[in-house]
Amino acid sequence: MTERVVLAYSGGLDTSVAIGWIAEETGAEVVAVAIDCGQGGEDLDVVRQRALDCGAVEAVVADAKDEFANEYCLPALRANALYMDRYPLVSALSRPLIVKHLADAARYHGATMVAHGCTGKGNDQVRFEAGLAALFPELKVLAPVRDSGMTRDKAIAFAEEKGLPIDVSKKSPYSIDQNLFGRAVETGFLEDIWNGPIEDVYAYTANPAEPREADEVVISFENGVPTAIDGKELTPLQVIEEMNRRAGAQGVGRIDMVEDRLVGIKSREVYEAPGAIALITAHQELENVTVERELARFKRGVDQRWGELVYDGLWFSPLKGALDGFVEEANRHVTGDVRMELHGGRAVVTGRRSEASLYNYELATYDTGDTFDQSLARGFIDIWSMPAKIASVRDRKHS
Amino acid sequence: MTERVVLAYSGGLDTSVAIGWIAEETGAEVVAVAIDCGQGGEDLDVVRQRALDCGAVEAVVADAKDEFANEYCLPALRANALYMDRYPLVSALSRPLIVKHLADAARYHGATMVAHGCTGKGNDQVRFEAGLAALFPELKVLAPVRDSGMTRDKAIAFAEEKGLPIDVSKKSPYSIDQNLFGRAVETGFLEDIWNGPIEDVYAYTANPAEPREADEVVISFENGVPTAIDGKELTPLQVIEEMNRRAGAQGVGRIDMVEDRLVGIKSREVYEAPGAIALITAHQELENVTVERELARFKRGVDQRWGELVYDGLWFSPLKGALDGFVEEANRHVTGDVRMELHGGRAVVTGRRSEASLYNYELATYDTGDTFDQSLARGFIDIWSMPAKIASVRDRKHS
Amino acid sequence: MTERVVLAYSGGLDTSVAIGWIAEETGAEVVAVAIDCGQGGEDLDVVRQRALDCGAVEAVVADAKDEFANEYCLPALRANALYMDRYPLVSALSRPLIVKHLADAARYHGATMVAHGCTGKGNDQVRFEAGLAALFPELKVLAPVRDSGMTRDKAIAFAEEKGLPIDVSKKSPYSIDQNLFGRAVETGFLEDIWNGPIEDVYAYTANPAEPREADEVVISFENGVPTAIDGKELTPLQVIEEMNRRAGAQGVGRIDMVEDRLVGIKSREVYEAPGAIALITAHQELENVTVERELARFKRGVDQRWGELVYDGLWFSPLKGALDGFVEEANRHVTGDVRMELHGGRAVVTGRRSEASLYNYELATYDTGDTFDQSLARGFIDIWSMPAKIASVRDRKHS
Amino acid sequence: MTERVVLAYSGGLDTSVAIGWIAEETGAEVVAVAIDCGQGGEDLDVVRQRALDCGAVEAVVADAKDEFANEYCLPALRANALYMDRYPLVSALSRPLIVKHLADAARYHGATMVAHGCTGKGNDQVRFEAGLAALFPELKVLAPVRDSGMTRDKAIAFAEEKGLPIDVSKKSPYSIDQNLFGRAVETGFLEDIWNGPIEDVYAYTANPAEPREADEVVISFENGVPTAIDGKELTPLQVIEEMNRRAGAQGVGRIDMVEDRLVGIKSREVYEAPGAIALITAHQELENVTVERELARFKRGVDQRWGELVYDGLWFSPLKGALDGFVEEANRHVTGDVRMELHGGRAVVTGRRSEASLYNYELATYDTGDTFDQSLARGFIDIWSMPAKIASVRDRKHS
Repeated sequence: MTERVVLAYSGGLDTSVAIGWIAEETGAEVVAVAIDCGQGGEDLDVVRQRALDCGAVEAVVADAKDEFANEYCLPALRANALYMDRYPLVSALSRPLIVKHLADAARYHGATMVAHGCTGKGNDQVRFEAGLAALFPELKVLAPVRDSGMTRDKAIAFAEEKGLPIDVSKKSPYSIDQNLFGRAVETGFLEDIWNGPIEDVYAYTANPAEPREADEVVISFENGVPTAIDGKELTPLQVIEEMNRRAGAQGVGRIDMVEDRLVGIKSREVYEAPGAIALITAHQELENVTVERELARFKRGVDQRWGELVYDGLWFSPLKGALDGFVEEANRHVTGDVRMELHGGRAVVTGRRSEASLYNYELATYDTGDTFDQSLARGFIDIWSMPAKIASVRDRKHS
Repeated sequence: MTERVVLAYSGGLDTSVAIGWIAEETGAEVVAVAIDCGQGGEDLDVVRQRALDCGAVEAVVADAKDEFANEYCLPALRANALYMDRYPLVSALSRPLIVKHLADAARYHGATMVAHGCTGKGNDQVRFEAGLAALFPELKVLAPVRDSGMTRDKAIAFAEEKGLPIDVSKKSPYSIDQNLFGRAVETGFLEDIWNGPIEDVYAYTANPAEPREADEVVISFENGVPTAIDGKELTPLQVIEEMNRRAGAQGVGRIDMVEDRLVGIKSREVYEAPGAIALITAHQELENVTVERELARFKRGVDQRWGELVYDGLWFSPLKGALDGFVEEANRHVTGDVRMELHGGRAVVTGRRSEASLYNYELATYDTGDTFDQSLARGFIDIWSMPAKIASVRDRKHS
Repeated sequence: MTERVVLAYSGGLDTSVAIGWIAEETGAEVVAVAIDCGQGGEDLDVVRQRALDCGAVEAVVADAKDEFANEYCLPALRANALYMDRYPLVSALSRPLIVKHLADAARYHGATMVAHGCTGKGNDQVRFEAGLAALFPELKVLAPVRDSGMTRDKAIAFAEEKGLPIDVSKKSPYSIDQNLFGRAVETGFLEDIWNGPIEDVYAYTANPAEPREADEVVISFENGVPTAIDGKELTPLQVIEEMNRRAGAQGVGRIDMVEDRLVGIKSREVYEAPGAIALITAHQELENVTVERELARFKRGVDQRWGELVYDGLWFSPLKGALDGFVEEANRHVTGDVRMELHGGRAVVTGRRSEASLYNYELATYDTGDTFDQSLARGFIDIWSMPAKIASVRDRKHS
Repeated sequence: MTERVVLAYSGGLDTSVAIGWIAEETGAEVVAVAIDCGQGGEDLDVVRQRALDCGAVEAVVADAKDEFANEYCLPALRANALYMDRYPLVSALSRPLIVKHLADAARYHGATMVAHGCTGKGNDQVRFEAGLAALFPELKVLAPVRDSGMTRDKAIAFAEEKGLPIDVSKKSPYSIDQNLFGRAVETGFLEDIWNGPIEDVYAYTANPAEPREADEVVISFENGVPTAIDGKELTPLQVIEEMNRRAGAQGVGRIDMVEDRLVGIKSREVYEAPGAIALITAHQELENVTVERELARFKRGVDQRWGELVYDGLWFSPLKGALDGFVEEANRHVTGDVRMELHGGRAVVTGRRSEASLYNYELATYDTGDTFDQSLARGFIDIWSMPAKIASVRDRKHS
């Protein structure tokens, strides 16, 4: 029986060419798999037909938007995942989802190989291959762009030679990856890190500098999961879409940074993630209200490691599972409402209320009704400061 | 000889009354010490005279603005110190400075006691007393507001009875602490955490929502220390003042949060710190460019602990010293320029350049000139993902 | 109705006297609660009768040995809990167990107060009171030794005056706390930290220096829980008892250290915990075999924080719960057998086998059968070392 | 001019053959570099002559024992470096030393290449190449065993064919690496992890099970550096040698573990490091006496990361430098004497004394002379436990 390759298919030039390229190179049949994780663009049926027209023996398309929201974006939100304190892991979250579908398709279609269109200097190749190594280690991985010289020029030549139904003329000046949780842009002129981005690179966010009316929104959470906006119950997917729309309209969530790639280099990245940034901001403040101090302090380190791990392609790894155990427990009481003002590129919390609040008006107030027993302070301070005091006395004697 | 008390003197009602209150209570002479750490307001000579008029035997005033900038604000900047990822430690930084001056004055004036005007439920009492325990543990601490019932009403009655030269009529609705690095506001209506702040609570920052022209600024750093703005060399004090002015004019640096106090409660705090927020944002991005990945990752944990420690009143502690050793080494190459746009409440980095940059165009680019050897990737990925892969195979067998 | 106090009762002089002391001081009825967590000594019925004879209106005794083993010792084992890398938390583990029984008894007997016999400079007062604050915050806490001057001399005088059935003559030179998981000894001559312990302080362990035959033991674990010894299935309680006996007979588990107390001072402590040390050693090595590298690295920090938290009296705290979530997940595959040699004070692992092993002979061997693809190494090394290499080149240029 | 290769030369079969092998393969001249880091064995002049006899154009030998002790072993001691809480980094410490000498020799002799004899599945290849990438990135690395098929059989054939002056008949059943700080043994029968080591694998340590007299030793430290033994001042090298001798004679420092290699697999390792283990044990306890609690707690995480970094081949990396800054500051007061009993495989601290001690008899004692103010405790406990208490009340209401 002819061997089969499952190909992560986007519908674009590179992966369309890859269908024939891989078939020629390996003699195998190609099964194209295209996953909708909210990247927008063409209809899935069109994408499917193009794969078949380009020579795929099977073309599988799947609307995975809800799955992506529920099982990938929500855990990131509960971990306030911001790589390098800035980047909400947009692409890093979608890769394990795609990997899961590739592995499933490979099992279903009896494939022995899997292919992706990544280059050899980015993070995504690691995320694909590390994920596949975990889910289906027996699969052989093909990466024609990286390993068999399928450059853009050769891809265009191949497409023209074979008469593939792809418009090779339109070339965006930008390299873009986008999904429900945000959008990443790389481009030539931004590789000079002294250059600022121009308005043209953005698509999910309006210009924050343009005058417009502010938008006020109330986001409701249960156990760290957003469940309603302005009192209207929504699915996680709907929450993210709605916040993308409203926060995006206010220019919220633009990010411009120099970033440490897993493959050892620094790169310049521009992102826009209006919904993700607004939701994480709201979630963090609700944690401030509902999570106990020592848990909150330790969770910052857990959140950081969670983000690094996912960025580094280790979604399907034992540490990820154990961190999830911690994060789940920590979100148990992150329930309540956060009111935000979205305006001029800012998503600012202006109010919070929660039945699970640890904020205690009677203890906090300086007004009538204060129940805090101030006589406790002296004993606390003396014991709290004792180790440093003893050390200080020692330091002056012994130096 | 009569015993002496050194009093942390602000010039306001409470500490003015405390001069006489403490004298009556202890029979000791009171030496008032007022430190200018950039809080603005009255002339130091006026403050000095008021202390004497209120009965102090000595009144020491010191302009410590440069000392505060150099020895307290700069270390915080180099540690990107943001308590709970938000609050740049405004008050927490000035307390150890004041403590140092109190201890010096106590030595100089032969005092056996020291007094402060803090209440028993805030952080500042801890910062004062823990600092004094470290620098001058033999001093007895007096806290008349907390420990001997000097309520506001009693203070006003005392002032009127003694005819003290204080205007007791003007009562701000806000409780405010401010210095060079920022401003903290607490107030009755904000103790309901569902209420948003009103424009009236702010003094360091203009309303970000008002339309105005953007301001572009280039900040130069050497070893993590800001040394020039727009090419003009400035002292750290001047840098912070200039950035307060320019970032404040654009509404940058407003913070509204529920915060974990050291004394075990959560409180609602509103801050504004335009210079601090803009400078930390610039410093973080210059670190992104000049600090190696593993160092950067570990430094996030160090920075967090540094901020907690200072917030918790342990400035003068052995761990603080050792963290400083780390932070200093980590800032060794944080040298270069950052260009920011200040506008509409946002301080956004738009460019960075550095002779110490680790960003390498030749390695990062996807254009001609790429020197990254993509054939390395496969070996890296296979070994990088091997532990998780082996675990994944095991998990499927053993479950 | 007369108020009631629940007293943590040990049967010894101090708490026997406390029954009457508290009754006189408060006018309340005293309910004595004695918990057997494996401390040995007198029969529980004897203890119960003594409490009644000393004036308690009720005396509750409970054999909580299984509960202690299952719900307190096992979680500590799964977290390899060693405070300061040495001390297996013996007393710190029993206090929350006792607190739970006190709170239950207070609810059952309608008490409004709770009493303990701790002094004011140890950790146990914190563990009692912090635990009670979490489980039953409405209870008022009495600590007669600390707060109402019930010194040993006064206690003896009280006992003699009232004719209490306590032998006040026998006074151990040591202050001892012991339970199933180990034994703690403090004493006058050990307070000089240059003095070594003498053989006389030990009770759970034989002298390791005496010649004897080695003992070999195989401990079986499932999910981090020890389930059998030498192939014989046992309950956790039986496992710990058996290991106490066998490791104790070989002098395993003596600890002599200077320790950081929560109340701010350093103290000298001597412990013996033969079963705990042997079991933790075995568990750690089984983790080495079955836990993936990145999970193992992160878990060390989790384990350390778990130990600090429990030492610090915060068993009933949100962070403890979230760490437990992590630890549970991390122990999911810690299943298999560990063979140890117990001899001369040493508990040394000599073999391990596990169906969940991540040790892979084919990958590890240098002999025939090696399946590790060595050609991967070069790519891995080049990318692994790239960030440090780029930094090193920069450092030489910029310094 | 003919190109030159600097070869890390051990004097054994593999690297002796590599001289000619590399010369043939590359046409380059080979400069052999042999470093004495305390591995014992042959005289350096003999090693030097053999290199020349095998065809090296130059042979450089260096006694680097003091350098190794001072600049590699001491920093490890100050960081209590134990990879996976067990392994004192024996080989991992010597590799950067050798790398430094290789880079120096390459500069001096104008080499363009560097060669080592490591295989492709161990850690040492990474340590060599990552170190060289940092110190001399322009050098091309040759690894004939890994990359050009120089198996043991081929090496023997090559030696016989060329008549090299090497005795190829004696083949140890063990693969051994040893230096001043310890000794590592791998071997076929230990690759079955259920097998225990036999006495035959050990060389630095006597059998701990054999009866003998105990040995008592007093080690003096200044700033974390051991400076004297039993009152006699010694260099660091002498201290380690003396402790190897005395602790080794008592069977101290044997380690048998399954270890996580950097290259992604688990391996079985047997080590013996009598001096290292005894010195680290003593240093840890002196830290217990002289290092303040919060510093000590944070330092555990720093120590762990330091050990991982060095194990992972990143000695010459920015994070290493910054951690060193922390560790140096933390050791500032680690000064004093530790008395240990060495006996039966155990190195047990029995006494400690220090002018820099933070142990305070007056605060710690329960006897007359106690100066600890127990009335402070209640305030401390109430505030210390408040966050968990508030959370506990909330949890019961909201669940």
